[in-house]
Amino acid sequence: MERAADSLTPLLDGIQAPADLKRLTREQLPLLSQELRDEIVRVCSVGGLHLASSLGATDVIVALHYVLNSPRDRILFDVGHQAYAHKMLTGRREQMPTIKKEGGLSGFTKVSESEHDAITVGHASTSLANALGMAVARDALGQDYRVAAVIGDGALTGGMALAALNTIGDMNRRMLIVLNDNEMSISENVGGLNKFMRGLQVQKWFQEGEGAGKKAVEAVSKPLASLMSRAKSSTRHFFDPASVNPFAAMGVRYVGPVDGHDVQELAWLMERLVDLDGPTILHVVTKKGKGLSYAEADPIYWHGPGKFDPATGDFSPSKAYSWSNAFGDAVIELAAQDPRTFVVTPAMREGSGLVEYSRAHPNRYLDVGIAEEVAVTAAAGMALQGLRPVVAIYSTFLQRAYDQVLHDVAIENLNVTFAIDRAGIVGADGATHNGVFDLSYLRSIPGVRLGLPRDAAELRGMLKYAQEHDGPFAIRYPRGNTAPVAAGTWPTLTWGEWERVQGGDEVVILAGGKALEYAEKAAAGLSGVGVVNARFVKPLDEAMLRTLARTACALVTVEDNTVVGGFGSAVLEFLNAEGLQVPVRVLGIPDEFQEHATAESVHARAGIDAQAIRTVLAELGVDVPLGV
Amino acid sequence: MERAADSLTPLLDGIQAPADLKRLTREQLPLLSQELRDEIVRVCSVGGLHLASSLGATDVIVALHYVLNSPRDRILFDVGHQAYAHKMLTGRREQMPTIKKEGGLSGFTKVSESEHDAITVGHASTSLANALGMAVARDALGQDYRVAAVIGDGALTGGMALAALNTIGDMNRRMLIVLNDNEMSISENVGGLNKFMRGLQVQKWFQEGEGAGKKAVEAVSKPLASLMSRAKSSTRHFFDPASVNPFAAMGVRYVGPVDGHDVQELAWLMERLVDLDGPTILHVVTKKGKGLSYAEADPIYWHGPGKFDPATGDFSPSKAYSWSNAFGDAVIELAAQDPRTFVVTPAMREGSGLVEYSRAHPNRYLDVGIAEEVAVTAAAGMALQGLRPVVAIYSTFLQRAYDQVLHDVAIENLNVTFAIDRAGIVGADGATHNGVFDLSYLRSIPGVRLGLPRDAAELRGMLKYAQEHDGPFAIRYPRGNTAPVAAGTWPTLTWGEWERVQGGDEVVILAGGKALEYAEKAAAGLSGVGVVNARFVKPLDEAMLRTLARTACALVTVEDNTVVGGFGSAVLEFLNAEGLQVPVRVLGIPDEFQEHATAESVHARAGIDAQAIRTVLAELGVDVPLGV
Repeated sequence: MERAADSLTPLLDGIQAPADLKRLTREQLPLLSQELRDEIVRVCSVGGLHLASSLGATDVIVALHYVLNSPRDRILFDVGHQAYAHKMLTGRREQMPTIKKEGGLSGFTKVSESEHDAITVGHASTSLANALGMAVARDALGQDYRVAAVIGDGALTGGMALAALNTIGDMNRRMLIVLNDNEMSISENVGGLNKFMRGLQVQKWFQEGEGAGKKAVEAVSKPLASLMSRAKSSTRHFFDPASVNPFAAMGVRYVGPVDGHDVQELAWLMERLVDLDGPTILHVVTKKGKGLSYAEADPIYWHGPGKFDPATGDFSPSKAYSWSNAFGDAVIELAAQDPRTFVVTPAMREGSGLVEYSRAHPNRYLDVGIAEEVAVTAAAGMALQGLRPVVAIYSTFLQRAYDQVLHDVAIENLNVTFAIDRAGIVGADGATHNGVFDLSYLRSIPGVRLGLPRDAAELRGMLKYAQEHDGPFAIRYPRGNTAPVAAGTWPTLTWGEWERVQGGDEVVILAGGKALEYAEKAAAGLSGVGVVNARFVKPLDEAMLRTLARTACALVTVEDNTVVGGFGSAVLEFLNAEGLQVPVRVLGIPDEFQEHATAESVHARAGIDAQAIRTVLAELGVDVPLGV
Repeated sequence: MERAADSLTPLLDGIQAPADLKRLTREQLPLLSQELRDEIVRVCSVGGLHLASSLGATDVIVALHYVLNSPRDRILFDVGHQAYAHKMLTGRREQMPTIKKEGGLSGFTKVSESEHDAITVGHASTSLANALGMAVARDALGQDYRVAAVIGDGALTGGMALAALNTIGDMNRRMLIVLNDNEMSISENVGGLNKFMRGLQVQKWFQEGEGAGKKAVEAVSKPLASLMSRAKSSTRHFFDPASVNPFAAMGVRYVGPVDGHDVQELAWLMERLVDLDGPTILHVVTKKGKGLSYAEADPIYWHGPGKFDPATGDFSPSKAYSWSNAFGDAVIELAAQDPRTFVVTPAMREGSGLVEYSRAHPNRYLDVGIAEEVAVTAAAGMALQGLRPVVAIYSTFLQRAYDQVLHDVAIENLNVTFAIDRAGIVGADGATHNGVFDLSYLRSIPGVRLGLPRDAAELRGMLKYAQEHDGPFAIRYPRGNTAPVAAGTWPTLTWGEWERVQGGDEVVILAGGKALEYAEKAAAGLSGVGVVNARFVKPLDEAMLRTLARTACALVTVEDNTVVGGFGSAVLEFLNAEGLQVPVRVLGIPDEFQEHATAESVHARAGIDAQAIRTVLAELGVDVPLGV
């Protein structure tokens, strides 16, 4: 499908599949990269997309598709939000405006979306273990395709990536790992390895460019044996803190760093590295936001910007007050009141509303990188030594630290609070990011108390309660906005006490957090319908449940969580254990993964929004006026 | 409490607390170590204890307690099963014969057991994140105690340990990390780092002993700045695969390797290293089974031996056929039939019954080290490329890979089978190791099918079914023994179909796996009591449940899993969703952590053994003869 000669993207217009890319000369690749970046900026200017990382990875992606043969060769993108150029080179360019919209392209790579997407992803640090599995499968089945993984320096701070690298070095399977080093996760990257990589970059051969790269590759063909024997006779390991290379130490051949925006050089190098025996890391240095001056200058904002003018970078700063802001404001005040308050984040300073906190209390703030397990267990260590740590984490990422919550925190009933953001359906990020499992997986852990605040005031009340009482507390709240409250607002509440917010005993709806909004809307104006702010899922308000079981004709539970093992199940378990008889309707997210769409749309399909609740009320005999 | 002059342990007799140890001269330390090792061998000869690792760590422990001041200074033991000498030096010597027994000492370190136990532990790789949290807490609260962690080279293959090390290098807090390198996890250690450490050990200064150690420590006091600037001008990083040090690269000062059995040298070094600014790794080389010739010769068997004669090492080899053996035998045959079968283990070759498999099918076997996340995601990669991987894993360790099961396997419905050993109460290993959460946490993940075989034949039937059908399957079976079955036994079953094993409609007991044994024993000879082999928890046998809800007067569910969100909850959810009315009694492990004791004892207290089920039957009106 050729376009008009005056197209802004003449090269890109000719590419429907990776095979078309191979007809270009290597000299044409920089222009293709530029066209892709221009198109990415246009696509992203509608807001809500991953701009800066996609710009930064474009040259690497062009080079990989120029050298490898997807889908036979497997190209894995860690996290997968940087792969917009990959989507556009693999037949999905026309669909790019649908990205992250219901029925449209995923914001990440997704196996079921394209044969060119090697893995389905969204969480960080999984690409190396997947690549190891693929290389092992290839060899076990006697096949010979290539495996290449692109992983950022941020994702490499994740434990499973480091552990996979260690195994990859041992197993010695043929694969290429492109370490896309932009010095960032979403915020500035952290970790000792990060400092090490910065050290590498100042070395003079990095400036020497192509010559050094080529020389290094020639060296690859020399037998490794001589190098090994040289190492054995060396004495300089004993104490030598900086002049080292951890990748090579793990047994992975290391080449780099090279300029990750010199696409011709990248293609030249990849051609020579991809078929070498054993694993090779190609360390490339890129700029998040490459080519877009305003994005290069502030890659944190431009990681996932709102709507903007592509020509100027002008945008209207969001005035919305998010749940994350409400948490951040609350914890700044808490820390000012209590020297034991300490906040831990796994690389989510911006997302968790902690920018101001990190400035206000720099000595009581720890970013451990994309390592949720470390965040939780470091908090356990803090709690053992007298602090009251708050782990600020997204629901979907806390899944990574299930065992650490159980083994390191809950067994000794330590004073760790989990501030769980993005709980429930998150919407555009889809199946990999929905936080609809936390009530189920946390509820099964003895001693972990669960709260679902309805608003910023209740969030503050729960945080304060958790800081003043012993044991682990988990407080979950959704993506989205809430109304701000005045500083100093600390409502008193008792953990485990629900609140009746609407009278009525014909049918009583039990719902907490986001689901309570829907419940109140559904019940508004309906006499006989009661609504309870079921703000605690563990423990339940057993006294109120006993009363309701006697007085109500039916109960309806509503939750923004899977119906398997969640809040509704907790109610059923309690009523059954007590021998209480009352009909219960359990509404929640069905036992299926929910694809990307607006949260409202998913809630409607799942049957938990106000309209759906009204339908259930009508089924239960409530006189529901039509059309309300 | 001094003992008679002819005591076998004159030095140890004088030590009731670490303070007593400090009265010894450094020259007396080797003898104290020897006394501790002799006592450990005597204690362990009753069987079921962690012998070899405790012998290997004794010198390190003596040196640490000689130099540090516990409990003010914090000494953390990774995994915690190597800390027997620590228990004996901290006032628990007399209780050592109670170790792992009901009401006795834990087999691991446990905060609630002693003020000297800095962390409660059992799972590997947690000590560094805990130590980081403690060092950060110390500094935030303006305190000045020391933090020292002892971690094995096996535990260092765990992702969270590597990620924590990376953060430790960045945060630069004062702490000592003793890397106890014995070349083993339970089996031989794996991973590129392991090879690297082996390379370090052949260097000549390792043989030079004390002189080299002292020289290295003098170097510590030199400013790091000059070393850093030296590194920047170096060009040898570009391609130099072996002459490197990954610990130093992460920003952690590295000293070693030194002889981990030269207790005087260890004390000398620790004294000088423990108060240095920033983190320091002291790499010590030890022998698992140190001092016991037969244990040094076969540290895998002597990791956790049965009963033996301390003088000779004689023991009666176990003739029992374990569930692990049944799995190992089945998968050997499966792999012979199907070239797509591939087995992945996270460092549990022996425990999961895979010794013979690893020899029979070495090219379809992968040990990823103590890295459960990598095991699961590598299996996902294999499944994406056409294999049918089986992840052999303990229930308690699969907790570490909850997110990988969900995000990497379940979202794309990949063909990965989880063979989950040690499900249910494990007994002597206690709260950290009980596998009583898997039904709850796996059931909430869409698409994961759950089976609980009653015997080896049913295990084989389920494995075969899983290899022949698409999507993820989880098959859980307990610690302990089962009857062997003939090779070639492959019973046909349909996933989701239960089996009535005893007629009777007054009360029907639903139970799978281990719980079925109890149910059958309880119901034996009771007319009117039915028993169903509820061998599938997901999906349930909905047709049979519908029938039973109509025909039975009451149902009793029994499970070796928490009652929160488990099998009983699944039954309640289904009956409620269908509007089916039948009284249900849910029996399972209560919502509390269960301490170490025999599994039978815990089951009795939890109310799921045959006697407890009979009591419930009687409450439900069944005529239960007394005394049966």
